[in-house]
This record gives sequence, C-alpha cells and structure tokens, in this order.
Amino acid sequence: MDETFLERALELAERGRGSTHPNPIVGAVVVAGGEVVGEGWHRRKGDEHAETIALAAAGERARGATVYVTLEPCAHHGDTPPCTDALIAAGVARVVAGQRDPNPKVVGGGLERLRSAGIEAEEATGELAFRCRQQIEEWRTWVARGRPFVTYKVAVSLDGRVSVPGRRWVSGEESRRLVHVLRAASDAVAVGMGTVRWDAPRLDARDVPTPRGQPRRLAFGRGPLPEGSELELRSGPLEDELAELAAEGVQSLLLEGGPTLAAAFLERGLVDKILAFVAPTLSGAGPGMLAGLPDPVELRRLQARRVGEDVLLQAYVHEP
Amino acid sequence: MDETFLERALELAERGRGSTHPNPIVGAVVVAGGEVVGEGWHRRKGDEHAETIALAAAGERARGATVYVTLEPCAHHGDTPPCTDALIAAGVARVVAGQRDPNPKVVGGGLERLRSAGIEAEEATGELAFRCRQQIEEWRTWVARGRPFVTYKVAVSLDGRVSVPGRRWVSGEESRRLVHVLRAASDAVAVGMGTVRWDAPRLDARDVPTPRGQPRRLAFGRGPLPEGSELELRSGPLEDELAELAAEGVQSLLLEGGPTLAAAFLERGLVDKILAFVAPTLSGAGPGMLAGLPDPVELRRLQARRVGEDVLLQAYVHEP
Repeated sequence: MDETFLERALELAERGRGSTHPNPIVGAVVVAGGEVVGEGWHRRKGDEHAETIALAAAGERARGATVYVTLEPCAHHGDTPPCTDALIAAGVARVVAGQRDPNPKVVGGGLERLRSAGIEAEEATGELAFRCRQQIEEWRTWVARGRPFVTYKVAVSLDGRVSVPGRRWVSGEESRRLVHVLRAASDAVAVGMGTVRWDAPRLDARDVPTPRGQPRRLAFGRGPLPEGSELELRSGPLEDELAELAAEGVQSLLLEGGPTLAAAFLERGLVDKILAFVAPTLSGAGPGMLAGLPDPVELRRLQARRVGEDVLLQAYVHEP
Repeated sequence: MDETFLERALELAERGRGSTHPNPIVGAVVVAGGEVVGEGWHRRKGDEHAETIALAAAGERARGATVYVTLEPCAHHGDTPPCTDALIAAGVARVVAGQRDPNPKVVGGGLERLRSAGIEAEEATGELAFRCRQQIEEWRTWVARGRPFVTYKVAVSLDGRVSVPGRRWVSGEESRRLVHVLRAASDAVAVGMGTVRWDAPRLDARDVPTPRGQPRRLAFGRGPLPEGSELELRSGPLEDELAELAAEGVQSLLLEGGPTLAAAFLERGLVDKILAFVAPTLSGAGPGMLAGLPDPVELRRLQARRVGEDVLLQAYVHEP
C-alpha cells in the first residue's frame, strides 16, 4: 500500500527532472481513505515544494490524511517557508518520507519536527528507499560530500580493453547515443590529458535534446591543451578541483577516462558509480579500463542491461 | 502457431538431456486439427527416435497431421530405421524441422526425402531456429567440425582481471556453484599448464549431481604435471588434441583458462562460446582474461544475466 503511493511520488518527481537545479527533484502524494486526493512535484528553484502543491490540491481532504514524499520535508526557511509547517497546518495524520535529508547543515530534521507536532512520521526502508535516494543521487552527494557525484563511464571489449585494433569506436551506435544523453544530463564532463592528446574529444552532447544546455567540458591534468581545444584545464589536486566545481554548482560529473585518470579518482574514493559499456568483441590488445590500483575497490549493486548489441554494466562504489 | 508447437518440441527434447550421449537430444510433436495428438523425445542411444515415438502416440491421427521436430528427421539407417520412412508411412501432411542435420556425411537430407514423397517439409527460421540449434550446439560442432564445442569460462573483476589481491576467488558463491554445474554437464574440462602450476585445480564437479559421472580433466601444454595431479596432459598441437578428443567422444570442452591458453585457442578459431562471470569489484592488479591476440575476435549474441551478486556475460564466437 505504502509502496504504491511512494512509487507514485517517485513518478511525479521525475516530471521535474532537468529543471529544478540546484534543487533536487521531489514528488509528493496525499492519500485519504486509500485514495489519492492530491499530487505535487517541485518544478523549479524558487517555486513551491512538492508537499505544499500536493496539500493545496487536496484542500480540506488533507486533514487526517497520509502524505508520501520522496524526500524528508524541509523544516527550515529557504526559498519557501518550511514544508513541515504546512503539513502541520493542514492537519495531516501521517508522513512517509522516502529518505532523510542528507544535508549535514540542516539542524533538526523535518521528521522530528513533525513528530513533535503529533504527526506519525516514518522513513521508507528497503528497495524503495534506495530508489528514492538513487533518484537524487547526484544532489545527495553534492550536499553531503561537498563534491560532484562522479560517474566513470567507459566502453570496453569483453576482454576489458578500451580500444579495438582497426575500429574507431569500441561500443555500438546505441551505446554512443546513450553517452550523449548522459552528457546532456550532466553538469560537467571530463577526461584526462592522455585522452585529450590521444583522442581530442569534444565531449559535447550531440544529436540529443539539451534543454539544460551543454555540460561544462573539462580536462584534468597538467600541460598545455592542444590549440583550439574548448576544454577547461583543471590542473590542481583532484579533491580541490572537485570542491571548487561543487561550489560553482556542479552536482554531477561524467568522467570519460582514460584509465589513468579513472584510477586516480578511484584511488582517492572520488568515483561514485561505474557505467561500463561492454561490446561483443575480444580486442586482444591495448590498455584495460583501469590503470593499477593500490587496493581493490568493492562495488555494490552490479546490474546489467542490453543497449543495442552491447551490455551496459552499472555498479556503485558509493551507494547513494 | 508453428512457434508454440516447436517450443513444445524443445521442451520435450530437454527431458533427454544428459542421457542420449553421443546422440543429440530431440523432441517431436504431432499436431492434428490444431491439437497435439502425439509427443515424443529421444531417451538414449539405441532407443527409438523422437519422431517415431510421437507418431506411435498419435496412431491413426497422424494421417494428414503436421509433425514438429527440433532436428531434421534422419533419412539413413543408424541404430533405428530412417525416421523419414516412418513419417511417410504414417501419412503425415507436413513436417517442420527446427534445423537441418549438420552432419556433412549424411548424404541426402531428410527434408528432401520427405518432399520427394509429397510431404510439405519446412525448416524453422529466426529466433526459434536459433534456439533449436543452440539446444544441441555441442553435438552440432562435434558432428560438423570434428572437434568438441569449446566454452571458455572465466571469472573476472569489473575491470577485466582474473585475480583480486587478497581474495581466494574472484566470483561469488552462486557463480562458483554454477561452474560446478557446467563441469558436470561437460564431457571434458581443461586448463593450461600456467593455471596448473599456479592453482593446482582439481577441475571436478563438486556438490552438484553428476548423473553422467565426472568430466575428463585435462591440462594442455608441456612439462611435467605436479606430483599427485589427476589431470591428463595433452601436449600436442591444439587442433590434433581436439580431433583426438572428438574421436574419443568428447563433444563438449569447458576451458577454464588461463589467459594464455584461452588466447591460443581463440587465435586458432577453437573457442565457440565465452562465459565471463563478472564480479562487483575493481581488482586494479593482475592479468586480464586474455593474453594478446593477433587480431580482434568479433562476438555474437552478447547476453547478460545476474548470478548472485555477479553478472554472467555470454557470447558466441561461432554461432551454433
């Protein structure tokens, strides 16, 4: 029962995808007598929050109702008054939040505030709670760790190599298209200087919608960029560069290699997710997807799906 | 319609799995008026073929019926009289075969024989035809190429390495159990001398049913086996060794590494299928799943499925 309504809140939240930056997407559902009586989602920064929109839609029926919301209601004044106040004023009986607010700076949680007002306030658990966190994983990492959420994207042959003799690309057309979709959804895209010299990648999102504009395009490392390169060169320590990018509002960074830069990020615990496009070929030559690591890195939630003729493997280093 | 009945024939064939050696498993269904009126499958060498069992079950209702069979009916005298004769004698109107008999030595196909007797005789196409071939891929390769069907099985970290520092095994418990199931279903299991020296594997199927007994356990390469090793040493050219094994009735060979032997097999076109168990870890050290290849090898039908916490990637070098 709870699951169904939280699923619906997740769906509603997705409608804000791409337009709420720097806020996370959030969805909310008001349920009375087993029936949805109000729905809402956050549309853009400065606009109302999902909870207050859903409460307004429910009107008087919110009294005694249960509110399902993908993220713990805020208890502080930001662009809008605290959602906890609105929930209390509406007289709701129960609130189910998909996840706690990860912001260490927010003193006093929203759920505690609701409880102290006599409202039953719960946190979701299990797989659905994970999906609520996953839905805003980039924002969570940005808020909680003060750096962008970093995804290492790589295309490899089945024998784990990043190039195939005689081929321009390792992965297939559908995978390459998906990479452009990923770029369009990222605040920044980056490669190392080895890749810049080898490949001179443009790193822009091509032939896909870019409602948020192009991502920032970065090269990590030292030495001069090739003439005409449109990449920004970030030559400081990785932690410092990431902190600076986060301060500039970069919540998500798509790291596109190469193996040396990826190993440097991983070694410092700076990669959150791996996306490995595995192509149906045995290369038999060339470097692997990662230079050496001082220690192995355990991954979580390894999953696979077909993308055209390729398989996309996804795993987390840091679970959201 | 045809698909449903051929699916059923595939199911029936599976009942013979493990007991028909050296014959392939085969299933057959007799359909009259849109209804199944007879079913059969091959049980063991020397016993009746699937078609004649299904025809016997159908009795008089076989007249004018359609027969679905996973493999082209035989037109020659073997352990039993030709199935084509039985089909003609029963007066069937139509035969749908999942695949042609791949045996180059069988002169004159079964379908042609049926057609010359006025029976409508067809070959399946598309995905279902593939599944019919795949069901007996080991036998097909043994018959058509005169060598065992070779599956390279390997466990790798997500970064494509065959070992993880500090860990006894790369893959998880469920994957390792599945490897024992694969061994129990193989006529022979093999490794290279590097693996023998490094690992001294027993290569037997443990903690799983072994109705066919243990597989033959082989080491390819030169030099003495360690004392007490129960492996057979095959030190000749790979092609010769495989031909000899085929002559001895070995239809399926599970190749368990290492990377050098696997590359030697691949380079000579002697691997048919790859099974790569990918574990949720980044090793960052150690060799990849394949030593160098002189040329890349294209794969077909790359597929993925979860096995415990791991992902099993499957692909064909030679499609059955």
